[in-house]
Amino acid sequence: MDFSHLLSARTGKMGASAIREILKVVGQPGMVSLAGGIPSPDSFPMERIKELTNKVFTKYGSAAFQYDLTEGFTPLREVMAAYLGEREIHVSPEEVLIQSGSQGVLDSICKVLISAGDKIAVEAPTYLGAIQAFKPYEPEFVRMEMDENGLIPESLEEVLKSHDIKFIYTVPTFQNPTGRSISLERRRRIAEIIIKYGALLVEDDPYSNLRYTGTALPAIKTMAPDNVIYITTLSKVLAPGLRIGICVAPEIISRWMVITKQGVDLHTSTFSQAIAAEYIAGGYLEQQLPKIIELYRPKHSAMLSALERFFPDGFSFSRPEGGMFIWVEGPAELDMEKIYWKAIERKVAFVPGKYFFTEDGEGLSTMRLNFTMSEVPVIESAIEVLGNVLKTES
Amino acid sequence: MDFSHLLSARTGKMGASAIREILKVVGQPGMVSLAGGIPSPDSFPMERIKELTNKVFTKYGSAAFQYDLTEGFTPLREVMAAYLGEREIHVSPEEVLIQSGSQGVLDSICKVLISAGDKIAVEAPTYLGAIQAFKPYEPEFVRMEMDENGLIPESLEEVLKSHDIKFIYTVPTFQNPTGRSISLERRRRIAEIIIKYGALLVEDDPYSNLRYTGTALPAIKTMAPDNVIYITTLSKVLAPGLRIGICVAPEIISRWMVITKQGVDLHTSTFSQAIAAEYIAGGYLEQQLPKIIELYRPKHSAMLSALERFFPDGFSFSRPEGGMFIWVEGPAELDMEKIYWKAIERKVAFVPGKYFFTEDGEGLSTMRLNFTMSEVPVIESAIEVLGNVLKTES
Repeated sequence: MDFSHLLSARTGKMGASAIREILKVVGQPGMVSLAGGIPSPDSFPMERIKELTNKVFTKYGSAAFQYDLTEGFTPLREVMAAYLGEREIHVSPEEVLIQSGSQGVLDSICKVLISAGDKIAVEAPTYLGAIQAFKPYEPEFVRMEMDENGLIPESLEEVLKSHDIKFIYTVPTFQNPTGRSISLERRRRIAEIIIKYGALLVEDDPYSNLRYTGTALPAIKTMAPDNVIYITTLSKVLAPGLRIGICVAPEIISRWMVITKQGVDLHTSTFSQAIAAEYIAGGYLEQQLPKIIELYRPKHSAMLSALERFFPDGFSFSRPEGGMFIWVEGPAELDMEKIYWKAIERKVAFVPGKYFFTEDGEGLSTMRLNFTMSEVPVIESAIEVLGNVLKTES
Repeated sequence: MDFSHLLSARTGKMGASAIREILKVVGQPGMVSLAGGIPSPDSFPMERIKELTNKVFTKYGSAAFQYDLTEGFTPLREVMAAYLGEREIHVSPEEVLIQSGSQGVLDSICKVLISAGDKIAVEAPTYLGAIQAFKPYEPEFVRMEMDENGLIPESLEEVLKSHDIKFIYTVPTFQNPTGRSISLERRRRIAEIIIKYGALLVEDDPYSNLRYTGTALPAIKTMAPDNVIYITTLSKVLAPGLRIGICVAPEIISRWMVITKQGVDLHTSTFSQAIAAEYIAGGYLEQQLPKIIELYRPKHSAMLSALERFFPDGFSFSRPEGGMFIWVEGPAELDMEKIYWKAIERKVAFVPGKYFFTEDGEGLSTMRLNFTMSEVPVIESAIEVLGNVLKTES
């Protein structure tokens, strides 16, 4: 049977296939991948997780394996409220929603808010997973400009003036894919603007704990609490396979997100949530975080200094103070996807930057590099290989 | 800020609120609930899960906590292919998708297939969770008639003749809410009809393992393999809190379900999937299933015989051979929601049957009773209370 005539109108618009296709070769034997967006397994507190798993059996028994509230496992919502409070996001446990990863939060925000044709303002470039969450809901994307200091407030204001925007989406700290952070001054200005325009901003904050240098920046949520949906995750500071995303949203949106989630997956894995609750409650995140930072810091500086040494003139790159990614911009005429295939021949993979833009023809000469998954000497030699490919091919 | 003007067109159509509102009182102290749709925690193999959890740490290590394939954890797909093969559903591991509960499967089917206004054929009554998964995609529901032997094939054929149906949704075995099963003869006839019309049928099969009497029935999938999306779950035979749903769909639909799921939650909890894989691979489901059946069988027969004894004339009820539910139909003029509130005063809860219908005004005199969550004496006294309320109020 060919059922392709049954596919919905939205299905054709998803189009996550292109990047999946090109990244298929990344799994080839001997490939060094700077393409991933995933934490090092060395960052997972395996012994602690095992200990806490056993504790969950004793403490919660069968309740950790039963159907549970769509809103989230109560002990996890309680400790997350305290955790967010330490970051100046003051909420009650009832205001905290647990979802299936940040991805789950993004999907439910879209389902509650986006009608086909609605406009969403996104950074150019922006997080690929967000584009994948948004696209099935058939929005129009309106681009906002960025520079080294992140989203440019004037661009945001211009967009809000000239368009009817459903929400603004931003990753303000160590953005995926650029690694850039919005400066403190700009955060304040952005908060003023969204308050002035009565706008809703979705602040996606998976990386701010992964800071290797510099000073912590407050979330935009702390500056405009009523106008911001704040999202964070335990995927980078505990383990992504547990699929724990956390969200704080205005009440009307939050209430519909719960009803939506009932239809999507009823609730997030109770067992995963119980382990996460014990991890936060026991203060183990605070113990593990310095270890994760010490694991990534040398990788981060090794990649930055290898880029200095091996990349040819005409290429600029971001110098993030944390996170998992560095962003490279080449000469305007460069076709980075061509470079990708040449690099694959030399057994080094990265992600061509164009996939992080919502419009075709943008970011053709850019690339995203990940530094969390490889060891320092591997990073150095991979950047040297890439530098040589760029010198030869560009 | 009031952001209610930002809600999407679909949001207003979800309307899962009414049943949530009336069921809020079920948690009151001293309430006996026959309203739930959940397995008894006594059915969870807790010691086995603990043992397998520790095995997962040894066998898979950090891989059980890392990001994983959207399609599902490979070892689980492998054992599920074998499991389905024993049930005459012959598939390769690559054809098996793991999703976040059956609910996750239903959501992704809808996302891939339903455009607003598309028609879905559903049994009247049908599973509430399916209605909740479908509604946000704004389909039209076309009702199919049932009787004691389940979905009536002639009604299905009539519907396919007179409507352009995207897919048919059925729970053929021990249906939620009625407990009814489609007879073998009717399954054969339904398979013929969907093949004849080139129709797509979604077969939701969470309960068929829970058989207390009678003979096993083959899945419709075994009779019309190309025309059926088959869904099952480990929620009733392992633990619902792990959120493991399993799906086999035609290739074009399956491929898009994976792309869809990438945007929805990336993948289902790896840790949950690894535990499930070990449970199936070790043959522990076969060991546990007889224990679960022995746990539920006395509850099932206690409820049936209490209904015989305590319910007044004019009430009929289903006599399922398995599952978790019994369906009661009262005299046409009865308002079962009024009875609900009277029963709540007497500290017994159930679900008024009207919530399982897609059209207002249907099923007003019906109720769904669950027998898995209460002990035998509690079931007997609760049915006696309900019988007395019905005698007084109807």
